[in-house]
Amino acid sequence: MQVPAFLDLDLPIIQAPMAGVQGSALAAAVCNAGGLGSLPCAMLSPQQLRNELTQLRRLTDRPFNINFFCHTPPVPDADRETRWRSALAPYYAEYGIDVSLIAAGPGRNPFSEESAVLVEEFRPAVVSFHFGLPHPDLLQRVKDWGAKVLSSATTVDEAVWLEDHGADAIIAQGLEAGGHRGMFLTDDLTTQVGTFALLPQILQAVNLPVIAAGGIADARGVAAAMALGASAAQVGTAYMLCPEATTSALHRTALQSPAARHTALTNVFTGRPARGIVNRVIRELGPLSAVAPQFPLATTSIAPLRARAESQDCSDFTPLWSGQNAIACKAVPAADLTRELASLLPHR
Amino acid sequence: MQVPAFLDLDLPIIQAPMAGVQGSALAAAVCNAGGLGSLPCAMLSPQQLRNELTQLRRLTDRPFNINFFCHTPPVPDADRETRWRSALAPYYAEYGIDVSLIAAGPGRNPFSEESAVLVEEFRPAVVSFHFGLPHPDLLQRVKDWGAKVLSSATTVDEAVWLEDHGADAIIAQGLEAGGHRGMFLTDDLTTQVGTFALLPQILQAVNLPVIAAGGIADARGVAAAMALGASAAQVGTAYMLCPEATTSALHRTALQSPAARHTALTNVFTGRPARGIVNRVIRELGPLSAVAPQFPLATTSIAPLRARAESQDCSDFTPLWSGQNAIACKAVPAADLTRELASLLPHR
Repeated sequence: MQVPAFLDLDLPIIQAPMAGVQGSALAAAVCNAGGLGSLPCAMLSPQQLRNELTQLRRLTDRPFNINFFCHTPPVPDADRETRWRSALAPYYAEYGIDVSLIAAGPGRNPFSEESAVLVEEFRPAVVSFHFGLPHPDLLQRVKDWGAKVLSSATTVDEAVWLEDHGADAIIAQGLEAGGHRGMFLTDDLTTQVGTFALLPQILQAVNLPVIAAGGIADARGVAAAMALGASAAQVGTAYMLCPEATTSALHRTALQSPAARHTALTNVFTGRPARGIVNRVIRELGPLSAVAPQFPLATTSIAPLRARAESQDCSDFTPLWSGQNAIACKAVPAADLTRELASLLPHR
Repeated sequence: MQVPAFLDLDLPIIQAPMAGVQGSALAAAVCNAGGLGSLPCAMLSPQQLRNELTQLRRLTDRPFNINFFCHTPPVPDADRETRWRSALAPYYAEYGIDVSLIAAGPGRNPFSEESAVLVEEFRPAVVSFHFGLPHPDLLQRVKDWGAKVLSSATTVDEAVWLEDHGADAIIAQGLEAGGHRGMFLTDDLTTQVGTFALLPQILQAVNLPVIAAGGIADARGVAAAMALGASAAQVGTAYMLCPEATTSALHRTALQSPAARHTALTNVFTGRPARGIVNRVIRELGPLSAVAPQFPLATTSIAPLRARAESQDCSDFTPLWSGQNAIACKAVPAADLTRELASLLPHR
């Protein structure tokens, strides 16, 4: 094992940040077991962020990771929104939803000056980004307080870009991974490759430590990632049934059903390609819709459908994020899972 | 290492059958090095098949694998052919090709009674199939002469089907793999998953030995596949620069260029999704064309364009088959590559 020294971990296991299904409790449990827990911050208000960070500091004295998105918020496009609402109209009718009452949905804000000021108080050891890196001034600020910076690469070009722009380690996000593709230099999905292909090519192209992600769900998967040359393995989906996760009952059921074998990259929930279990709205409007508004604007119009359907125990409009390998999901404490994930590795 | 005993190999390395870029010479070299060499038979005439099998027997006394397709030949669809020719018309004009002179292109025939009679004389130890399995009577014939039967699964459902229908081992063909997807129970490409995700799920679902394929290109890849639980690793792309391969100069150049980083699943060359390096015709008509005739009929109309372009040292219309991980391609003898692929495995 060659865990990058700066991560200062007992086990080379990183729990992937998963907005919407976990918070400080899962992250802390993983940290306390010797891995690196992650707090997803993209969907938190400043007050929620403060609460979660306070909680995380209270629950663990180990290093932890906080994760932000760093997309450029789009200019809303009224035409596209109209076309998107037309596509959704039959569902609004089916659920009796008054379109004029749709409020702005849950947003996803990029890392900002405001976030930096707030986070700095808590001095997280690691900050990870999705969709590239923030503005150089903001990035410098993070580095100035001593945090190490990770970011996801989905292609060799992105890995090289991240190395050139100041990342301290690179997460090679293979196509198997659940949730949002971290792609930021291209929107061509044919450029996205499986972990077996991505990891060796990124390792060859950069000098930074590389963390493997995508399809890694059990101890054999972690051992395989390390055999390929990874410095650590990032695991997401496998943690979603842990009691410390906040995964909804509907989502937990889906993950344990045969439906979990069939995921797709879809933009219907947020506007950006993200991997989730195929459900009705993906089947009927996607998986990739040409009229879905740009990330994260697509969320607003689908939110009331999701809420109404979920109130009837129906996940037809729920983003059931999952990687391609959900078979190892187990409802066990995150600490146990973390230790199990590392159980086939040689002791250091 | 737990190579299935029936394969009787020194090394758990299977050279993937690759029609069009290799024949008996590559297969024999791999066999003689202790792996399992494969002869792709889908594009061979009966006389060519006899010659290749004779040659293979002459070159090695080790077990070898012969590979057949077992698709159902489609009924030609004149309308679709017309639409396909319209799509190709600008290229015919560009290259000055007289459409009325296009002869039937290189076909791909499924395993047949005739093939069985011919092959039986040579009693190959292993016969592998792509696109499912042949008719039960034909399959029984293969088994009666003592051959072990492999076939590719691209989903858990296909793996279970193959186990139920008489396969002796299953090749888990991850999405990273080059050439034709072996998919035969679905044509929905969102069902196709990366090797990291496919292998554990197939291992959990069947009792047969499972061979990993897709993105495995070097010794670390082989070690990773074995760590995931594979009984052997099937490697294709990495062999394409070996002197024993018949890979064209254009194809060799492409594999060693940065272009090889970008492959796509395309149906423009044959009518079925197959992975190749993105070139002009994939970019302009694909990667997936709704009007490409059914496999293997799409080949005929593109063949003269390919021939004309290749005569000008241009690979714009050439199927540059490649997996997603071409970085380990090396122009070294296949025996050396085979031993190198197994070099990180514990000795048996």
